[in-house]
Amino acid sequence: MDSTIDLSDASKALDLFNIRYQLIRLEDTITFHLIERAQFPLNATIYKAGGIAIPNSDLSLFDWIMSASERLHALVRRYESPDETPFFPSALEKPILQPLHYPQILHANDVNVNPEIKDSYINHILPTVCAQREERPEQQENYGSAATIDVLVLQSLSRRIHFGKFVAESKFRTETDRFVKLIKAEDRKGIDEAITNMAVEQQVLDRLKLKAATYGTDPSGGSRDVGKIDVDAVVNTYKNYVIPLTKVVEVEYLMQRLKGTEWE
Amino acid sequence: MDSTIDLSDASKALDLFNIRYQLIRLEDTITFHLIERAQFPLNATIYKAGGIAIPNSDLSLFDWIMSASERLHALVRRYESPDETPFFPSALEKPILQPLHYPQILHANDVNVNPEIKDSYINHILPTVCAQREERPEQQENYGSAATIDVLVLQSLSRRIHFGKFVAESKFRTETDRFVKLIKAEDRKGIDEAITNMAVEQQVLDRLKLKAATYGTDPSGGSRDVGKIDVDAVVNTYKNYVIPLTKVVEVEYLMQRLKGTEWE
Repeated sequence: MDSTIDLSDASKALDLFNIRYQLIRLEDTITFHLIERAQFPLNATIYKAGGIAIPNSDLSLFDWIMSASERLHALVRRYESPDETPFFPSALEKPILQPLHYPQILHANDVNVNPEIKDSYINHILPTVCAQREERPEQQENYGSAATIDVLVLQSLSRRIHFGKFVAESKFRTETDRFVKLIKAEDRKGIDEAITNMAVEQQVLDRLKLKAATYGTDPSGGSRDVGKIDVDAVVNTYKNYVIPLTKVVEVEYLMQRLKGTEWE
Repeated sequence: MDSTIDLSDASKALDLFNIRYQLIRLEDTITFHLIERAQFPLNATIYKAGGIAIPNSDLSLFDWIMSASERLHALVRRYESPDETPFFPSALEKPILQPLHYPQILHANDVNVNPEIKDSYINHILPTVCAQREERPEQQENYGSAATIDVLVLQSLSRRIHFGKFVAESKFRTETDRFVKLIKAEDRKGIDEAITNMAVEQQVLDRLKLKAATYGTDPSGGSRDVGKIDVDAVVNTYKNYVIPLTKVVEVEYLMQRLKGTEWE
Protein backbone atom coordinates (compact mmCIF):
# COMPACT_ATOMS: atom_id res chain seq x y z
CA MET A 1 0.00 0.00 0.00
CA ASP A 2 1.05 3.51 -0.66
CA SER A 3 2.41 5.65 2.06
CA THR A 4 3.51 9.22 1.80
CA ILE A 5 7.02 10.20 2.70
CA ASP A 6 7.62 10.60 6.42
CA LEU A 7 8.75 14.16 6.99
CA SER A 8 8.94 13.69 10.73
CA ASP A 9 12.10 11.61 10.26
CA ALA A 10 14.97 13.35 8.48
CA SER A 11 16.85 10.17 7.58
CA LYS A 12 13.76 8.72 5.86
CA ALA A 13 12.85 12.01 4.21
CA LEU A 14 16.28 12.29 2.60
CA ASP A 15 16.57 8.64 1.54
CA LEU A 16 16.69 8.85 -2.26
CA PHE A 17 14.68 5.64 -2.53
CA ASN A 18 11.84 7.20 -0.54
CA ILE A 19 12.05 10.47 -2.46
CA ARG A 20 11.97 8.64 -5.77
CA TYR A 21 8.92 6.68 -4.64
CA GLN A 22 7.15 9.89 -3.62
CA LEU A 23 7.97 11.55 -6.95
CA ILE A 24 6.58 8.56 -8.87
CA ARG A 25 3.45 8.60 -6.75
CA LEU A 26 2.99 12.33 -7.39
CA GLU A 27 2.91 11.59 -11.13
CA ASP A 28 -0.37 9.77 -10.50
CA THR A 29 -1.78 12.67 -8.50
CA ILE A 30 -0.83 15.22 -11.16
CA THR A 31 -2.21 13.03 -13.96
CA PHE A 32 -5.50 12.46 -12.08
CA HIS A 33 -5.99 16.19 -11.54
CA LEU A 34 -5.12 17.06 -15.16
CA ILE A 35 -7.67 14.48 -16.35
CA GLU A 36 -10.29 16.13 -14.14
CA ARG A 37 -9.40 19.59 -15.46
CA ALA A 38 -9.68 18.40 -19.08
CA GLN A 39 -13.44 17.97 -18.56
CA PHE A 40 -13.82 21.72 -18.77
CA PRO A 41 -13.01 24.26 -21.45
CA LEU A 42 -10.01 26.52 -21.05
CA ASN A 43 -12.18 29.37 -19.71
CA ALA A 44 -9.44 31.95 -20.20
CA THR A 45 -11.52 34.66 -18.50
CA ILE A 46 -10.90 33.22 -15.06
CA TYR A 47 -7.14 33.94 -15.32
CA LYS A 48 -7.56 37.58 -16.31
CA ALA A 49 -7.47 40.21 -13.58
CA GLY A 50 -10.84 41.95 -13.80
CA GLY A 51 -12.16 39.26 -16.17
CA ILE A 52 -14.86 38.63 -13.61
CA ALA A 53 -15.74 41.44 -11.26
CA ILE A 54 -14.92 40.49 -7.67
CA PRO A 55 -15.99 42.96 -4.99
CA ASN A 56 -13.06 44.53 -3.11
CA SER A 57 -10.47 42.67 -5.15
CA ASP A 58 -8.65 43.22 -8.41
CA LEU A 59 -7.48 39.61 -8.62
CA SER A 60 -8.51 37.22 -11.36
CA LEU A 61 -11.14 34.70 -10.27
CA PHE A 62 -8.48 31.98 -10.23
CA ASP A 63 -6.06 34.02 -8.14
CA TRP A 64 -8.85 34.90 -5.75
CA ILE A 65 -9.82 31.24 -5.24
CA MET A 66 -6.17 30.16 -5.03
CA SER A 67 -5.23 32.76 -2.43
CA ALA A 68 -8.40 32.11 -0.40
CA SER A 69 -7.66 28.37 -0.46
CA GLU A 70 -4.10 28.96 0.69
CA ARG A 71 -5.29 31.24 3.48
CA LEU A 72 -7.64 28.50 4.68
CA HIS A 73 -5.02 25.76 4.42
CA ALA A 74 -2.44 27.92 6.18
CA LEU A 75 -4.78 28.07 9.18
CA VAL A 76 -4.48 24.30 9.49
CA ARG A 77 -0.69 24.32 9.12
CA ARG A 78 -0.24 23.34 5.47
CA TYR A 79 2.69 25.69 4.90
CA GLU A 80 4.57 24.61 8.00
CA SER A 81 5.33 21.37 6.17
CA PRO A 82 8.71 21.54 4.42
CA ASP A 83 7.25 20.06 1.20
CA GLU A 84 4.58 22.75 0.75
CA THR A 85 5.24 26.09 -0.94
CA PRO A 86 2.59 28.81 -1.19
CA PHE A 87 1.66 30.76 -4.33
CA PHE A 88 0.49 33.74 -2.27
CA PRO A 89 2.87 33.91 0.69
CA SER A 90 1.64 37.36 1.64
CA ALA A 91 -1.96 36.15 1.94
CA LEU A 92 -1.18 33.51 4.57
CA GLU A 93 -2.31 33.82 8.16
CA LYS A 94 -0.89 32.24 11.28
CA PRO A 95 -2.11 28.68 11.91
CA ILE A 96 -4.91 28.31 14.42
CA LEU A 97 -3.59 24.88 15.44
CA GLN A 98 -0.61 24.18 17.67
CA PRO A 99 2.59 23.98 15.62
CA LEU A 100 4.02 20.61 14.63
CA HIS A 101 7.70 20.04 15.18
CA TYR A 102 9.34 18.95 11.97
CA PRO A 103 12.99 18.00 12.20
CA GLN A 104 15.46 20.19 10.32
CA ILE A 105 15.57 18.43 6.95
CA LEU A 106 16.36 21.18 4.47
CA HIS A 107 18.86 23.98 4.77
CA ALA A 108 17.27 27.42 5.23
CA ASN A 109 16.29 28.74 1.80
CA ASP A 110 13.78 30.97 0.06
CA VAL A 111 13.54 29.09 -3.26
CA ASN A 112 10.00 29.41 -4.63
CA VAL A 113 9.37 28.92 -8.35
CA ASN A 114 5.58 29.04 -8.01
CA PRO A 115 5.33 32.22 -10.14
CA GLU A 116 7.05 30.31 -12.98
CA ILE A 117 4.85 27.24 -12.38
CA LYS A 118 1.66 29.30 -12.48
CA ASP A 119 2.74 31.13 -15.61
CA SER A 120 3.69 27.88 -17.39
CA TYR A 121 0.45 26.24 -16.34
CA ILE A 122 -1.90 28.99 -17.48
CA ASN A 123 -0.11 29.96 -20.68
CA HIS A 124 1.34 26.68 -21.91
CA ILE A 125 0.05 23.58 -20.11
CA LEU A 126 -3.66 24.39 -19.86
CA PRO A 127 -4.10 25.26 -23.55
CA THR A 128 -2.74 21.82 -24.50
CA VAL A 129 -4.73 19.96 -21.85
CA CYS A 130 -8.02 21.70 -22.64
CA ALA A 131 -7.74 22.22 -26.39
CA GLN A 132 -8.94 18.78 -27.32
CA ARG A 133 -9.70 18.31 -30.99
CA GLU A 134 -11.75 21.48 -31.07
CA GLU A 135 -11.51 24.32 -28.62
CA ARG A 136 -14.71 24.44 -26.64
CA PRO A 137 -16.31 27.78 -25.86
CA GLU A 138 -16.18 29.25 -22.38
CA GLN A 139 -18.80 27.99 -19.97
CA GLN A 140 -19.52 30.44 -17.24
CA GLU A 141 -21.29 27.74 -15.22
CA ASN A 142 -17.97 25.91 -15.00
CA TYR A 143 -15.70 28.79 -14.02
CA GLY A 144 -15.70 27.78 -10.36
CA SER A 145 -15.23 24.08 -11.07
CA ALA A 146 -12.35 24.74 -13.44
CA ALA A 147 -10.60 27.11 -11.03
CA THR A 148 -11.07 24.74 -8.10
CA ILE A 149 -9.38 21.93 -10.03
CA ASP A 150 -6.64 24.35 -11.13
CA VAL A 151 -5.83 24.83 -7.45
CA LEU A 152 -5.39 21.06 -7.09
CA VAL A 153 -3.26 20.74 -10.22
CA LEU A 154 -1.01 23.64 -9.25
CA GLN A 155 -0.60 22.47 -5.66
CA SER A 156 0.47 19.02 -6.86
CA LEU A 157 2.81 20.45 -9.53
CA SER A 158 4.33 22.78 -6.94
CA ARG A 159 4.83 19.97 -4.45
CA ARG A 160 6.45 17.77 -7.12
CA ILE A 161 8.76 20.50 -8.38
CA HIS A 162 9.83 21.77 -4.96
CA PHE A 163 10.65 18.20 -3.93
CA GLY A 164 13.80 19.07 -5.87
CA LYS A 165 15.02 20.58 -2.61
CA PHE A 166 14.99 17.16 -0.94
CA VAL A 167 16.73 15.62 -3.94
CA ALA A 168 19.37 18.36 -3.88
CA GLU A 169 19.92 18.07 -0.12
CA SER A 170 20.30 14.33 -0.41
CA LYS A 171 22.80 14.65 -3.27
CA PHE A 172 24.68 17.38 -1.37
CA ARG A 173 25.08 15.13 1.66
CA THR A 174 26.30 12.24 -0.53
CA GLU A 175 28.82 14.22 -2.59
CA THR A 176 29.52 17.16 -0.34
CA ASP A 177 33.03 18.00 -1.58
CA ARG A 178 32.01 18.00 -5.21
CA PHE A 179 29.03 20.28 -4.64
CA VAL A 180 30.87 22.65 -2.27
CA LYS A 181 33.41 23.29 -5.05
CA LEU A 182 30.74 23.88 -7.70
CA ILE A 183 28.69 26.14 -5.43
CA LYS A 184 31.70 28.21 -4.38
CA ALA A 185 32.57 28.65 -8.06
CA GLU A 186 28.92 29.69 -8.66
CA ASP A 187 29.05 27.15 -11.45
CA ARG A 188 25.29 26.74 -12.06
CA LYS A 189 25.96 24.89 -15.30
CA GLY A 190 28.26 22.47 -13.53
CA ILE A 191 25.67 21.90 -10.78
CA ASP A 192 23.01 21.35 -13.41
CA GLU A 193 25.19 18.74 -15.09
CA ALA A 194 25.96 17.08 -11.77
CA ILE A 195 22.26 16.62 -10.97
CA THR A 196 21.14 15.61 -14.47
CA ASN A 197 20.61 12.00 -15.46
CA MET A 198 19.20 11.89 -18.99
CA ALA A 199 18.40 8.18 -18.81
CA VAL A 200 16.25 8.70 -15.70
CA GLU A 201 14.50 11.67 -17.30
CA GLN A 202 13.56 9.55 -20.29
CA GLN A 203 12.23 6.85 -17.95
CA VAL A 204 10.02 9.45 -16.27
CA LEU A 205 8.60 10.57 -19.62
CA ASP A 206 7.98 6.99 -20.75
CA ARG A 207 6.20 6.25 -17.49
CA LEU A 208 4.08 9.42 -17.77
CA LYS A 209 2.97 8.39 -21.23
CA LEU A 210 1.84 5.02 -19.95
CA LYS A 211 0.07 6.55 -16.94
CA ALA A 212 -1.76 9.23 -18.92
CA ALA A 213 -2.93 6.61 -21.44
CA THR A 214 -4.00 4.17 -18.73
CA TYR A 215 -5.67 6.55 -16.28
CA GLY A 216 -7.13 8.59 -19.12
CA THR A 217 -8.98 5.66 -20.65
CA ASP A 218 -12.15 4.19 -19.18
CA PRO A 219 -11.11 0.50 -18.98
CA SER A 220 -14.72 -0.60 -19.53
CA GLY A 221 -14.99 1.40 -22.73
CA GLY A 222 -17.76 3.38 -21.10
CA SER A 223 -16.60 6.80 -22.21
CA ARG A 224 -17.89 8.48 -25.32
CA ASP A 225 -14.53 8.26 -26.95
CA VAL A 226 -11.16 6.83 -26.19
CA GLY A 227 -9.14 9.34 -24.26
CA LYS A 228 -10.11 11.61 -21.39
CA ILE A 229 -6.87 13.52 -21.88
CA ASP A 230 -4.29 14.18 -24.57
CA VAL A 231 -1.41 11.90 -23.58
CA ASP A 232 1.20 14.14 -25.22
CA ALA A 233 -0.05 17.11 -23.22
CA VAL A 234 0.77 15.26 -19.99
CA VAL A 235 4.16 14.08 -21.24
CA ASN A 236 5.06 17.57 -22.45
CA THR A 237 3.99 19.05 -19.11
CA TYR A 238 6.77 17.04 -17.53
CA LYS A 239 9.26 17.40 -20.37
CA ASN A 240 8.97 21.15 -20.80
CA TYR A 241 8.03 22.35 -17.32
CA VAL A 242 8.16 19.88 -14.44
CA ILE A 243 11.63 18.48 -15.11
CA PRO A 244 13.31 21.81 -16.06
CA LEU A 245 11.72 23.68 -13.13
CA THR A 246 12.72 20.91 -10.71
CA LYS A 247 16.31 21.43 -11.84
CA VAL A 248 16.01 25.18 -11.28
CA VAL A 249 14.83 24.41 -7.74
CA GLU A 250 17.75 22.02 -7.17
CA VAL A 251 20.35 24.45 -8.50
CA GLU A 252 18.99 27.49 -6.64
CA TYR A 253 18.64 25.50 -3.43
CA LEU A 254 22.25 24.38 -3.70
CA MET A 255 23.38 27.96 -4.40
CA GLN A 256 21.99 28.81 -0.93
CA ARG A 257 23.29 25.63 0.70
CA LEU A 258 26.57 26.98 2.08
CA LYS A 259 25.13 30.06 3.80
CA GLY A 260 25.93 29.99 7.49
CA THR A 261 27.87 26.74 7.24
CA GLU A 262 31.54 25.83 7.76
CA TRP A 263 32.04 25.98 3.97
CA GLU A 264 30.95 29.55 3.46
CA MET B 1 -12.98 14.29 -25.13
CA ASP B 2 -14.86 14.48 -21.91
CA SER B 3 -17.36 17.16 -21.30
CA THR B 4 -19.42 17.70 -18.21
CA ILE B 5 -23.17 17.78 -18.38
CA ASP B 6 -24.60 21.07 -19.56
CA LEU B 7 -26.87 22.37 -16.82
CA SER B 8 -27.68 25.54 -18.71
CA ASP B 9 -29.90 23.51 -21.05
CA ALA B 10 -32.73 21.61 -19.39
CA SER B 11 -33.35 19.24 -22.28
CA LYS B 12 -29.70 18.15 -22.31
CA ALA B 13 -29.49 17.97 -18.54
CA LEU B 14 -32.45 15.58 -18.37
CA ASP B 15 -31.41 13.39 -21.30
CA LEU B 16 -30.81 10.01 -19.67
CA PHE B 17 -27.93 9.33 -22.06
CA ASN B 18 -26.15 12.47 -20.84
CA ILE B 19 -26.94 11.72 -17.21
CA ARG B 20 -25.62 8.18 -17.58
CA TYR B 21 -22.43 9.48 -19.14
CA GLN B 22 -21.96 11.95 -16.29
CA LEU B 23 -22.53 9.23 -13.69
CA ILE B 24 -19.95 6.98 -15.36
CA ARG B 25 -17.48 9.85 -15.50
CA LEU B 26 -18.03 10.58 -11.81
CA GLU B 27 -16.98 7.00 -11.02
CA ASP B 28 -13.52 7.96 -12.24
CA THR B 29 -13.48 11.10 -10.11
CA ILE B 30 -14.57 9.24 -6.98
CA THR B 31 -12.06 6.44 -7.59
CA PHE B 32 -9.22 8.93 -8.16
CA HIS B 33 -9.98 10.75 -4.90
CA LEU B 34 -10.31 7.52 -2.91
CA ILE B 35 -6.92 6.39 -4.25
CA GLU B 36 -5.44 9.68 -3.07
CA ARG B 37 -7.01 9.32 0.36
CA ALA B 38 -5.67 5.78 0.74
CA GLN B 39 -2.14 7.21 0.92
CA PHE B 40 -2.85 8.33 4.46
CA PRO B 41 -3.81 6.48 7.62
CA LEU B 42 -7.38 6.65 8.88
CA ASN B 43 -6.47 9.41 11.38
CA ALA B 44 -9.71 8.96 13.35
CA THR B 45 -8.92 11.97 15.55
CA ILE B 46 -9.76 14.42 12.80
CA TYR B 47 -13.43 13.30 12.79
CA LYS B 48 -13.92 13.70 16.54
CA ALA B 49 -15.33 16.94 17.84
CA GLY B 50 -12.68 18.30 20.19
CA GLY B 51 -10.16 15.72 18.94
CA ILE B 52 -7.99 18.62 17.90
CA ALA B 53 -8.47 21.89 19.73
CA ILE B 54 -9.69 24.58 17.33
CA PRO B 55 -9.98 28.10 18.73
CA ASN B 56 -13.58 29.41 18.84
CA SER B 57 -15.01 26.20 17.42
CA ASP B 58 -16.19 22.91 18.80
CA LEU B 59 -16.17 21.23 15.39
CA SER B 60 -13.95 18.31 14.48
CA LEU B 61 -10.98 19.28 12.33
CA PHE B 62 -12.63 17.65 9.33
CA ASP B 63 -15.94 19.47 9.88
CA TRP B 64 -14.09 22.73 10.31
CA ILE B 65 -12.20 22.32 7.02
CA MET B 66 -15.31 21.08 5.22
CA SER B 67 -17.49 23.97 6.38
CA ALA B 68 -14.77 26.53 5.66
CA SER B 69 -14.31 25.07 2.16
CA GLU B 70 -18.04 25.23 1.52
CA ARG B 71 -18.18 28.82 2.76
CA LEU B 72 -15.42 29.72 0.31
CA HIS B 73 -17.00 27.85 -2.60
CA ALA B 74 -20.40 29.35 -1.86
CA LEU B 75 -18.88 32.79 -2.40
CA VAL B 76 -18.09 31.79 -5.97
CA ARG B 77 -21.57 30.32 -6.58
CA ARG B 78 -20.94 26.59 -6.15
CA TYR B 79 -24.25 25.95 -4.43
CA GLU B 80 -26.31 27.84 -6.97
CA SER B 81 -25.68 24.94 -9.33
CA PRO B 82 -28.52 22.40 -9.20
CA ASP B 83 -26.06 19.49 -9.00
CA GLU B 84 -24.28 20.72 -5.87
CA THR B 85 -25.56 20.06 -2.35
CA PRO B 86 -23.85 21.49 0.74
CA PHE B 87 -22.93 19.55 3.89
CA PHE B 88 -23.15 22.70 6.03
CA PRO B 89 -26.02 24.72 4.56
CA SER B 90 -26.10 27.03 7.56
CA ALA B 91 -22.44 28.00 7.08
CA LEU B 92 -22.93 29.30 3.55
CA GLU B 93 -22.69 32.94 2.67
CA LYS B 94 -24.17 34.84 -0.23
CA PRO B 95 -22.11 34.64 -3.45
CA ILE B 96 -19.89 37.62 -4.17
CA LEU B 97 -20.30 37.06 -7.92
CA GLN B 98 -23.32 37.96 -10.02
CA PRO B 99 -25.85 35.09 -10.05
CA LEU B 100 -25.97 32.70 -12.99
CA HIS B 101 -29.34 31.91 -14.47
CA TYR B 102 -29.89 28.18 -14.56
CA PRO B 103 -33.06 27.01 -16.23
CA GLN B 104 -35.61 25.27 -14.03
CA ILE B 105 -34.52 21.66 -14.36
CA LEU B 106 -35.55 20.06 -11.10
CA HIS B 107 -38.80 20.44 -9.20
CA ALA B 108 -38.42 22.43 -5.97
CA ASN B 109 -37.21 20.06 -3.26
CA ASP B 110 -35.18 19.94 -0.06
CA VAL B 111 -33.71 16.45 -0.44
CA ASN B 112 -30.22 16.37 1.10
CA VAL B 113 -28.73 13.05 2.21
CA ASN B 114 -25.31 14.54 2.97
CA PRO B 115 -25.58 13.70 6.68
CA GLU B 116 -26.04 10.02 5.72
CA ILE B 117 -23.21 10.25 3.17
CA LYS B 118 -20.84 11.75 5.72
CA ASP B 119 -21.74 9.20 8.36
CA SER B 120 -21.29 6.29 5.91
CA TYR B 121 -18.01 7.68 4.69
CA ILE B 122 -16.39 8.23 8.08
CA ASN B 123 -17.69 5.13 9.81
CA HIS B 124 -17.83 2.55 7.04
CA ILE B 125 -16.08 3.57 3.82
CA LEU B 126 -12.90 5.15 5.20
CA PRO B 127 -11.99 2.25 7.50
CA THR B 128 -12.05 -0.11 4.50
CA VAL B 129 -10.17 2.28 2.20
CA CYS B 130 -7.47 3.11 4.75
CA ALA B 131 -7.13 -0.20 6.61
CA GLN B 132 -4.81 -1.81 4.12
CA ARG B 133 -3.23 -5.02 5.31
CA GLU B 134 -2.26 -3.46 8.61
CA GLU B 135 -3.79 -0.39 10.17
CA ARG B 136 -1.23 2.37 10.13
CA PRO B 137 -0.90 4.61 13.16
CA GLU B 138 -2.17 8.16 13.13
CA GLN B 139 0.17 10.72 11.60
CA GLN B 140 -0.45 14.16 12.92
CA GLU B 141 1.59 15.64 10.07
CA ASN B 142 -0.99 14.29 7.65
CA TYR B 143 -4.18 15.41 9.40
CA GLY B 144 -4.63 18.38 7.09
CA SER B 145 -3.81 16.43 3.92
CA ALA B 146 -6.22 13.63 4.83
CA ALA B 147 -9.05 16.03 5.69
CA THR B 148 -8.50 18.06 2.53
CA ILE B 149 -8.85 14.93 0.38
CA ASP B 150 -11.90 13.90 2.42
CA VAL B 151 -13.55 17.13 1.27
CA LEU B 152 -12.91 16.12 -2.35
CA VAL B 153 -14.17 12.57 -1.86
CA LEU B 154 -17.32 13.69 -0.08
CA GLN B 155 -18.08 16.41 -2.61
CA SER B 156 -17.81 13.92 -5.46
CA LEU B 157 -19.87 11.28 -3.63
CA SER B 158 -22.51 13.89 -2.84
CA ARG B 159 -22.63 15.10 -6.41
CA ARG B 160 -22.94 11.52 -7.70
CA ILE B 161 -25.66 10.55 -5.24
CA HIS B 162 -27.73 13.72 -5.63
CA PHE B 163 -27.65 13.26 -9.40
CA GLY B 164 -30.42 10.85 -8.52
CA LYS B 165 -32.70 13.90 -8.66
CA PHE B 166 -31.98 14.33 -12.36
CA VAL B 167 -32.52 10.62 -12.96
CA ALA B 168 -35.82 10.75 -11.04
CA GLU B 169 -37.01 13.87 -12.86
CA SER B 170 -36.19 12.30 -16.20
CA LYS B 171 -38.04 9.08 -15.31
CA PHE B 172 -40.99 11.09 -13.97
CA ARG B 173 -41.31 12.98 -17.23
CA THR B 174 -41.14 9.74 -19.24
CA GLU B 175 -43.65 7.76 -17.16
CA THR B 176 -45.63 10.50 -15.52
CA ASP B 177 -48.91 8.58 -15.01
CA ARG B 178 -47.22 5.62 -13.41
CA PHE B 179 -45.25 7.77 -10.96
CA VAL B 180 -48.15 10.08 -10.11
CA LYS B 181 -50.12 7.04 -8.97
CA LEU B 182 -47.26 5.64 -6.90
CA ILE B 183 -46.49 9.02 -5.34
CA LYS B 184 -50.14 9.71 -4.47
CA ALA B 185 -50.32 6.28 -2.83
CA GLU B 186 -47.11 7.17 -0.93
CA ASP B 187 -45.87 3.82 -2.17
CA ARG B 188 -42.13 4.27 -1.54
CA LYS B 189 -41.54 0.56 -2.07
CA GLY B 190 -43.34 0.70 -5.40
CA ILE B 191 -41.32 3.75 -6.47
CA ASP B 192 -38.13 2.03 -5.41
CA GLU B 193 -39.04 -0.97 -7.54
CA ALA B 194 -39.95 1.23 -10.48
CA ILE B 195 -36.54 2.92 -10.46
CA THR B 196 -34.47 -0.20 -9.80
CA ASN B 197 -32.70 -2.08 -12.54
CA MET B 198 -30.63 -4.87 -11.01
CA ALA B 199 -28.81 -5.65 -14.24
CA VAL B 200 -27.61 -2.06 -14.57
CA GLU B 201 -26.54 -2.00 -10.92
CA GLN B 202 -24.41 -5.10 -11.48
CA GLN B 203 -22.85 -3.43 -14.54
CA VAL B 204 -21.92 -0.45 -12.41
CA LEU B 205 -20.24 -2.67 -9.82
CA ASP B 206 -18.35 -4.64 -12.47
CA ARG B 207 -17.16 -1.41 -14.04
CA LEU B 208 -16.07 -0.02 -10.66
CA LYS B 209 -14.01 -3.13 -10.02
CA LEU B 210 -12.21 -2.70 -13.31
CA LYS B 211 -11.64 1.01 -12.73
CA ALA B 212 -10.33 0.62 -9.18
CA ALA B 213 -7.94 -2.12 -10.33
CA THR B 214 -6.76 -0.13 -13.36
CA TYR B 215 -6.42 3.33 -11.82
CA GLY B 216 -5.10 1.84 -8.57
CA THR B 217 -2.19 0.09 -10.25
CA ASP B 218 0.91 1.88 -11.49
CA PRO B 219 1.01 0.60 -15.09
CA SER B 220 4.81 0.83 -15.16
CA GLY B 221 5.14 -1.35 -12.08
CA GLY B 222 6.81 1.55 -10.34
CA SER B 223 4.90 1.27 -7.08
CA ARG B 224 6.26 -0.59 -4.10
CA ASP B 225 3.49 -3.13 -4.31
CA VAL B 226 0.61 -3.90 -6.58
CA GLY B 227 -2.41 -1.91 -5.49
CA LYS B 228 -2.76 1.66 -4.37
CA ILE B 229 -6.25 0.86 -3.14
CA ASP B 230 -8.31 -2.12 -2.04
CA VAL B 231 -10.51 -2.80 -5.06
CA ASP B 232 -13.26 -4.37 -2.94
CA ALA B 233 -13.40 -1.25 -0.77
CA VAL B 234 -14.27 0.82 -3.85
CA VAL B 235 -16.83 -1.69 -5.13
CA ASN B 236 -18.45 -1.93 -1.70
CA THR B 237 -18.58 1.86 -1.43
CA TYR B 238 -20.90 1.81 -4.42
CA LYS B 239 -22.74 -1.37 -3.52
CA ASN B 240 -23.50 -0.48 0.09
CA TYR B 241 -23.69 3.31 0.02
CA VAL B 242 -23.67 5.09 -3.34
CA ILE B 243 -26.35 2.99 -5.04
CA PRO B 244 -28.72 2.69 -2.03
CA LEU B 245 -28.39 6.40 -1.14
CA THR B 246 -28.99 7.40 -4.76
CA LYS B 247 -32.25 5.48 -4.58
CA VAL B 248 -33.20 7.25 -1.38
CA VAL B 249 -32.61 10.55 -3.19
CA GLU B 250 -34.72 9.44 -6.15
CA VAL B 251 -37.60 8.23 -3.98
CA GLU B 252 -37.61 11.26 -1.68
CA TYR B 253 -37.36 13.62 -4.63
CA LEU B 254 -40.34 11.94 -6.28
CA MET B 255 -42.31 12.11 -3.02
CA GLN B 256 -42.00 15.91 -3.28
CA ARG B 257 -42.59 15.98 -7.04
CA LEU B 258 -46.32 16.68 -7.03
CA LYS B 259 -46.24 19.64 -4.61
CA GLY B 260 -47.73 22.67 -6.26
CA THR B 261 -48.51 20.84 -9.49
CA GLU B 262 -51.77 19.91 -11.24
CA TRP B 263 -51.52 16.41 -9.77
CA GLU B 264 -51.44 17.42 -6.12
